[in-house]
Amino acid sequence: MTMTKPYVLGVDVGGTNTVFGIVDARGQVVASGSIKTKKHADFDDYVDELHTEVTRLLQANDAEGKIKGIGIGAPNANYYTGEIVNPPNLPWGPVIPLAEKVSKAFDGLPVAVTNDANAAALGEMTYGAARGMKDFIMITLGTGVGSGIVVNGQMVYGHDGNAGELGHLVVKRNNGRVCGCGRTGCLEAYASATGVARTAREFLEIRTEPSMLRSLEIEDITSKDVYDAAVAGDKLAKEIFDYTGKILGEACADMCAFSSPQAIILFGGLAKSGDLLMKPMREAFDNALFPVYKGKIKILISELKESDAAVLGASALGWEAKYQYQANQNLAPVVVPAAAAAENPEK
Amino acid sequence: MTMTKPYVLGVDVGGTNTVFGIVDARGQVVASGSIKTKKHADFDDYVDELHTEVTRLLQANDAEGKIKGIGIGAPNANYYTGEIVNPPNLPWGPVIPLAEKVSKAFDGLPVAVTNDANAAALGEMTYGAARGMKDFIMITLGTGVGSGIVVNGQMVYGHDGNAGELGHLVVKRNNGRVCGCGRTGCLEAYASATGVARTAREFLEIRTEPSMLRSLEIEDITSKDVYDAAVAGDKLAKEIFDYTGKILGEACADMCAFSSPQAIILFGGLAKSGDLLMKPMREAFDNALFPVYKGKIKILISELKESDAAVLGASALGWEAKYQYQANQNLAPVVVPAAAAAENPEK
Repeated sequence: MTMTKPYVLGVDVGGTNTVFGIVDARGQVVASGSIKTKKHADFDDYVDELHTEVTRLLQANDAEGKIKGIGIGAPNANYYTGEIVNPPNLPWGPVIPLAEKVSKAFDGLPVAVTNDANAAALGEMTYGAARGMKDFIMITLGTGVGSGIVVNGQMVYGHDGNAGELGHLVVKRNNGRVCGCGRTGCLEAYASATGVARTAREFLEIRTEPSMLRSLEIEDITSKDVYDAAVAGDKLAKEIFDYTGKILGEACADMCAFSSPQAIILFGGLAKSGDLLMKPMREAFDNALFPVYKGKIKILISELKESDAAVLGASALGWEAKYQYQANQNLAPVVVPAAAAAENPEK
Repeated sequence: MTMTKPYVLGVDVGGTNTVFGIVDARGQVVASGSIKTKKHADFDDYVDELHTEVTRLLQANDAEGKIKGIGIGAPNANYYTGEIVNPPNLPWGPVIPLAEKVSKAFDGLPVAVTNDANAAALGEMTYGAARGMKDFIMITLGTGVGSGIVVNGQMVYGHDGNAGELGHLVVKRNNGRVCGCGRTGCLEAYASATGVARTAREFLEIRTEPSMLRSLEIEDITSKDVYDAAVAGDKLAKEIFDYTGKILGEACADMCAFSSPQAIILFGGLAKSGDLLMKPMREAFDNALFPVYKGKIKILISELKESDAAVLGASALGWEAKYQYQANQNLAPVVVPAAAAAENPEK
């Protein structure tokens, strides 16, 4: 008797690398590989190489025919349509039929796609700090600020697949910083790695205290520089984290008024700043929280290794794709991309 | 052969009156009645009178034995526990076991309770402007600002039943007005009937223009006075609505970043101010909206008659209580209140 262990394939499409992994039901990345995302000007060639390299990996790990679904996390990927729309850092045009092409290349295997922050939330729910939680909010603090929201055990996609843009909550109504989205005062303009660097430049210009950051070229300062200075005891650098943490904590308190989650989970580079960020963040969060929520909502740091998280998160969606395909095809048009366009009234 | 037409009972517990109605599957209020909420110092006596009066109404309408469930909307009522917790305007103690007592009085009929804003959202989804929508946000603009959020066709209750407090999003981070919740700068302190009256007092004190509002005792001004003055062409009164609409529109834009709803639906007294409120509200909303949502999200006014809305909304929950009781008891502990406490890990 042969036990066939089922796997899913998780794929993380990054601006530079596309990383993929064979993942088992317990969240172990059995094997992984990668290709260069921008090597091919034509999207079909990219998918061909992905298929070739994945097939090689499957063969090497005796996993051919055992993949139940493919989950893909990609910037601006839409769960409902299976497409990537207007990605800031990818070639291949404004609308890329990601799910359709990948499903075809893999002989019709069910494929589900979502944006990277949602994938992170799914990974956390399936394998990480949110295991067993039905209501939580994942905030990714990277170059930008992303979010993935889970309500009643389900990912919140919204009516068009674009829910969960909490990095673009407006935290400064007046005189706010210009954000990459074209508006002003967004959370992302303050609580991201680039936001911290911008705060550093502002503080250095406006204030007069000495700081080891003053020895750096002001335009080249990174959040890492600020972190290193703060760890070394630099007072101004610490205040930059205080300022960032306060804005983040207040914004997170507002998020709770929406879905009253069990936890807010922070992920990404900045989330690893430890007490430098978390102490002022928690303080501001506790102060700003609507009374009925006080003491009930946890602030947690992601439990996933950052190197695995993207692939694991995407793979979690692969299980879901499989489930929807078999059980409930009408409700999950993304699994059969050709049907998706017909069924989605927004298209 | 006799067709038995099923009904639900909708109950709206207000600070002054408790209104109840027999509602059919098409949302017709077949008959209704009311009792004085505060007549009885003892909650058991209140439930007794409710039961007596409802029974009388059922008999008069040949509806005895045809009620499938009871839905109750009440301030601070919690869907998960079936309790009213710390209600600002009710006697009977800090924690009132509403669902349990009512279910017992009605021979174990399934009962589900929720707060009034959630009930309004359910009514709108079942019988009103949100029919057929799976993702929308209901904002009730009354004495305060309440909200009910629907995601994926489900009410968002949050992990503890307290989700949807969007009246307490902070819209002024600095120098905001004190809110009834004890914090400062909440949406409710600006975009409610009392908020409009406060804005009027502020404007009259700080500004020097003539206004017909100046003939009123400043402490007694109501939102109705401001409305009447604006309709009569008073410029300052119009600006008070501009100010209110702008704050409301910007806050609603932030809400979209959470759940990307098909529509935001406004309900309650202020929502009937017409263009006075809606024009500046829509303008601010459109300006503030994150680009990906632009042109996609409707701002609607409730389609329910205000006199029926509370009972209809509560009754919609009655159908749900019935459904959950029969089909999925484990997932809907509120229907059997004794089990609720045991199953809710937060208790």
